[in-house]
Amino acid sequence: MAAVRKAASMLNLSNMNPCVKEMQYAVRGPIVIRAAQLEKELKSGKSMPFEQVIRANIGDAHAMGQKPISFVREVISLSVSPNLMKTAPSCFTNDAIQRATEILENVGGQSMGSYTDSPGIVTVRNHVAEYISERDGYPASPDDIFVGTGASSCIKNIMKLCLTMDNESRPGFMIPVPQYPLYSACTAEFNAELISYYMDEHNNWTLNPEELERAYDEAKSRCVPKAICVINPGNPTGQNIPPENIVDIIKFAHKHDLLIMADEVYQTNIWGDDDQFVSFKKVLRSLGPEYDSQPLASFHSVSKGFMGECGLRGGYCEMTNFDPEVKVMLQKLISASLCSSTSGQVAISCMVKAPSGDAAELYKSETEGVLASLKERSILVHEKLNEIPGIVCNNLQGAMYAFPRIEIPKKAIELAESKGVTPDFFYCLELLENTGICVVPGSGFWQYPGTFHFRMTILPPMEQLVVFLEKLAKFHVEFREKYG
Amino acid sequence: MAAVRKAASMLNLSNMNPCVKEMQYAVRGPIVIRAAQLEKELKSGKSMPFEQVIRANIGDAHAMGQKPISFVREVISLSVSPNLMKTAPSCFTNDAIQRATEILENVGGQSMGSYTDSPGIVTVRNHVAEYISERDGYPASPDDIFVGTGASSCIKNIMKLCLTMDNESRPGFMIPVPQYPLYSACTAEFNAELISYYMDEHNNWTLNPEELERAYDEAKSRCVPKAICVINPGNPTGQNIPPENIVDIIKFAHKHDLLIMADEVYQTNIWGDDDQFVSFKKVLRSLGPEYDSQPLASFHSVSKGFMGECGLRGGYCEMTNFDPEVKVMLQKLISASLCSSTSGQVAISCMVKAPSGDAAELYKSETEGVLASLKERSILVHEKLNEIPGIVCNNLQGAMYAFPRIEIPKKAIELAESKGVTPDFFYCLELLENTGICVVPGSGFWQYPGTFHFRMTILPPMEQLVVFLEKLAKFHVEFREKYG
Repeated sequence: MAAVRKAASMLNLSNMNPCVKEMQYAVRGPIVIRAAQLEKELKSGKSMPFEQVIRANIGDAHAMGQKPISFVREVISLSVSPNLMKTAPSCFTNDAIQRATEILENVGGQSMGSYTDSPGIVTVRNHVAEYISERDGYPASPDDIFVGTGASSCIKNIMKLCLTMDNESRPGFMIPVPQYPLYSACTAEFNAELISYYMDEHNNWTLNPEELERAYDEAKSRCVPKAICVINPGNPTGQNIPPENIVDIIKFAHKHDLLIMADEVYQTNIWGDDDQFVSFKKVLRSLGPEYDSQPLASFHSVSKGFMGECGLRGGYCEMTNFDPEVKVMLQKLISASLCSSTSGQVAISCMVKAPSGDAAELYKSETEGVLASLKERSILVHEKLNEIPGIVCNNLQGAMYAFPRIEIPKKAIELAESKGVTPDFFYCLELLENTGICVVPGSGFWQYPGTFHFRMTILPPMEQLVVFLEKLAKFHVEFREKYG
Repeated sequence: MAAVRKAASMLNLSNMNPCVKEMQYAVRGPIVIRAAQLEKELKSGKSMPFEQVIRANIGDAHAMGQKPISFVREVISLSVSPNLMKTAPSCFTNDAIQRATEILENVGGQSMGSYTDSPGIVTVRNHVAEYISERDGYPASPDDIFVGTGASSCIKNIMKLCLTMDNESRPGFMIPVPQYPLYSACTAEFNAELISYYMDEHNNWTLNPEELERAYDEAKSRCVPKAICVINPGNPTGQNIPPENIVDIIKFAHKHDLLIMADEVYQTNIWGDDDQFVSFKKVLRSLGPEYDSQPLASFHSVSKGFMGECGLRGGYCEMTNFDPEVKVMLQKLISASLCSSTSGQVAISCMVKAPSGDAAELYKSETEGVLASLKERSILVHEKLNEIPGIVCNNLQGAMYAFPRIEIPKKAIELAESKGVTPDFFYCLELLENTGICVVPGSGFWQYPGTFHFRMTILPPMEQLVVFLEKLAKFHVEFREKYG
């Protein structure tokens, strides 16, 4: 009896952190958990209306069959086991040997097992700064760069700087809706206010300055807006924001004293023939010295782009126009977590600095191959989705996702509501149970009230993607008939 | 002018997160930053009263020259570049090939670049559970294990579960003083109360149940005590808590409904001839079913022990007797950070499961060699410190540090106070400037009021350690003369 009494009074749902209870992370949420169950049942021989689960829920390229870039793996193996330079030199390019040597020279004891400086290995930060200068045509400094366990941890650390611990002035973060669920999860965890600003689905998900003002005005009575986040190219929405729209956002932020957080992890995933990625940093610098006080944090990652090295957990942040005293505080904050993984840091170096010797040709053909294949799939997904009656999908200008709007019949909406789930959740669960296709309900990303969407990745291999889109079309028609 | 106005009103020291400002992390604090400056100056040819900086500030074994265990590096290289199994098989043991293959079979796309399950690769968690069962003689389940970016991130996630967002009922964490600065940094970051309970320096840093009650009683008016943390073997204090003392702590926690957080990252660093590590889990289970409701989180890491693989960032937590609903919430919390680095996870497998075939002998001799050498250094450090007049150091039963008490003359205390620094900070800075020896002031770890200490690691190589201890002795005598 004593045990039961105690169990109730110790750490439990009623006395645990309410913010953690509040958090949602749909990309790994209930639909995905159900997909894993179905996979297990399939393996155990249970008969299902499908032969395999197709996971299009998460931007996890290698899990969907994408191959790593050889150079990255060579450099990591050599950094971890430098003796291979002597025992198996023929297995490695000189470029890889040189890069691993260069990095090892700048870590303690020349070992990947040493803690690195908290902002990251100086060689890696130098490579990042060179990449950014080259990309934008404006100088970048390694002292403005810090690396992290994926871009996610960098984003969280920047958000942490903005928190207040005062219930009377809750910090607010302006987040684009639809958003990537990291942002809603973090604002929930940090007990901060998520200020939704809606992207304009009817204008290819552009950001309307008037909508920014509306969102800001409505929010300022209930919180202190601290920062505006922008995801470009968009996740889940796939737009590539044109420079003139970036100017609008910077001016808006400047006017209201907001930090800009530019989530630019898809900067090399650009699909439109006439499209080009333009960074917030470049646009900011082009606006002249009046904006030299406008702080901007920009994020990049090895998990996306052409590498897709999600499991290595490498990301970085460039801090532009940050107050030097705040940078000292950030340094202290990240010091308490010591450093991020050395293999992730090596991967960052390989992403931002291509080899130029004997590994150059293969690196080029592999990266171009990955990007060309993703582009082909993005075109197919966009085309096929729009062929399905009751589904509309904007152009996929960048990133790795489609976020189509779906019409859900009234009967299905009512049935979903009677089950206490959102209509798009109901749709996605039916889709999974009937076809094995695993996508994420739009509600997990938030969406304009009354609209319904789902997010799918463009990552399944071409032959699987074709089947996927056929099955989806068939399902959608049947769903409409069933509930129409 | 506009720029200046804006700079003042944007993110700055006065409006940033006050908790981050409050945080301190002495292990990478001002003394260490000064040490790095001195190293630069030495390199640039400046004349100093010493020829090198000896870094004994941080438990960073490889940076101090410790070599990695070959098996670990083989398995990581093969997991990253599985083609080496074919192109360079003679460079690897069969054990390493088998282990890498086993792990790759359980990650998406058989690639280390895929996200893993948020709690970690199932193979790795199975290996951890086997290790714990074997160690304790009580069953362990992979479902109770989650891995993280070092033990630090696991500790932070468990603490996050206990937070409240209510200023009227701040959560309190009972922390042993002297403590590892992660705990004071986290309580500051989380706006939680650090409840100091003092370990008894005069009784080899044992934990006195009466002192626990005193600390609890004094704290409960200003916060809601949620958990008690214990670091065993102790950092910075080096004690190995005997089982009967662990019983006291468990009974205390049970009486007051506190979660137990057992930081057991030094569990294989035991130096006393008659000493043996006994886990909190083992003692808890031995107390019988009355304690089956007592939640315990235990932490371990690849950064310490015999591997010292700090840079790989691998750690894990075992949750014993956790409420299943709370475990679901934890799973959601860690999902939002996706997963920890695959190389860190592979290192965990190699730490908890020794190879048993052709890699077994070398693995055994390497691990035993590292531990024997650390033991030898722990004995030397203890002996030599106690030979210095005015320095007293308890037995080093475990971990990688000594935390000697130092007498600081009154004049030096007054001088320090006039400079606005703590006397032990003043002492450590003088030590650094005069000898190149870098240690961390006791105040960074907190200490009993009126006592002064520093923390040094036992990690410098033997020949450097001998010089270190001679220089320290000479410095200490001169310091006492100068200010005595």
